[in-house]
Amino acid sequence: MAERTIGILGGMGPLATADLFRRIVEKTPAKRDQDHPRIIIYNDPKIPDRTAFILGNGEDPRPALVEGARKLESWGADFIIMPCNTAHFFAETVQKAITIPLVSMIEATADAIEQLGLRRVGLLATDGTIKGLVYHRALLNRGIGIAVPGKNDQGKVMRAIYHGVKAGDIEAARKLLMDVAKRLERRVDGMIAGCTEVSVALRQDDLSVPLIDPLDVIAEKAVRLALGLEEL
Amino acid sequence: MAERTIGILGGMGPLATADLFRRIVEKTPAKRDQDHPRIIIYNDPKIPDRTAFILGNGEDPRPALVEGARKLESWGADFIIMPCNTAHFFAETVQKAITIPLVSMIEATADAIEQLGLRRVGLLATDGTIKGLVYHRALLNRGIGIAVPGKNDQGKVMRAIYHGVKAGDIEAARKLLMDVAKRLERRVDGMIAGCTEVSVALRQDDLSVPLIDPLDVIAEKAVRLALGLEEL
Repeated sequence: MAERTIGILGGMGPLATADLFRRIVEKTPAKRDQDHPRIIIYNDPKIPDRTAFILGNGEDPRPALVEGARKLESWGADFIIMPCNTAHFFAETVQKAITIPLVSMIEATADAIEQLGLRRVGLLATDGTIKGLVYHRALLNRGIGIAVPGKNDQGKVMRAIYHGVKAGDIEAARKLLMDVAKRLERRVDGMIAGCTEVSVALRQDDLSVPLIDPLDVIAEKAVRLALGLEEL
Repeated sequence: MAERTIGILGGMGPLATADLFRRIVEKTPAKRDQDHPRIIIYNDPKIPDRTAFILGNGEDPRPALVEGARKLESWGADFIIMPCNTAHFFAETVQKAITIPLVSMIEATADAIEQLGLRRVGLLATDGTIKGLVYHRALLNRGIGIAVPGKNDQGKVMRAIYHGVKAGDIEAARKLLMDVAKRLERRVDGMIAGCTEVSVALRQDDLSVPLIDPLDVIAEKAVRLALGLEEL
């Protein structure tokens, strides 16, 4: 099968996008530059905050998401991935605006959790991802339970994401997330790093249950799709 | 001044391109996603090997370089940077094909070395960069001397780049480069990580003289240009 060009609709946030790019490169079996697939990245950090809009107090990010996806299609991407969990709340709108597939990080992650045989997973994510039920449907469709932090702990997760990683302080974010995870992991047998900023800050060693990282899941799937090892 | 969109003509190699992207994000003074500039990356690892062509035994990379630069211009980049030292051998050809500036990593690096007041620097680079005199003119124009590894050591540098970093083994590359640098640094008062694969593998702590990293230099310049803090 011919190779495919990966399109990355990024900037939400930029560090997570750079991290996804690196993971794709590192997961590609390659001995020289030319063994790697082509990747087009549109890093558009100007896309309005997804959580703010879902919670009813922010600008609509859909026009910018649709514009970015259409650009990537017109530039030659064969499929699009979107390294932002919360933005998947708008996945249907984006998919309807383009003719190439938007490969869902959420569905791929739910598949991975099902394959691991986990029965109930914790979700470290933005308020937008949680209140928008971004992961709930995909997991419940597979018979997998989901647990979220209590109100106070969820405030810490939001601080870790917005005042930690997005503001450039990864270590502060990691400490906040470890503190929340310590309580949440008593109730679950796996943990989703359900925000790309959590993926950047939290490591498997910080937890006592398996960490499922959607950035890793989508990086591996993108490599297989790009190299033609999996059908689109 | 209005913000500018950064265009990155990458894939030479892909890991160095991902590293440059990360450095740009980390060097941007930002408290939230929207403070970051837009970046468009065309990661095209299919561009034929630059050194092979300069040494007379490979396919011409110029058509792919020109095509990539034209794409970035048509996609909305305001200027282009190219995270491959050797590819700058073809910088004039690329610049002539587009109307936006190709901001030279080589000239920016020579400026940085001049500002540091260094008089003679070592160059860890591909055979193509050395034989193509990519750094020589920029440095000699500023009265800065240049020293390159002996033939045997230069073979080790090439192995570090091609069989180390480009093949995914960064630690092996680092050891080879440290061994070569140990001898070269006796003759110089600074060292250029003159190949993006060297930038990825070698660290300041590995040397006893200042390490000048063109990937850092161009990342900082790209941030200033993108935020409108410096004229194009």
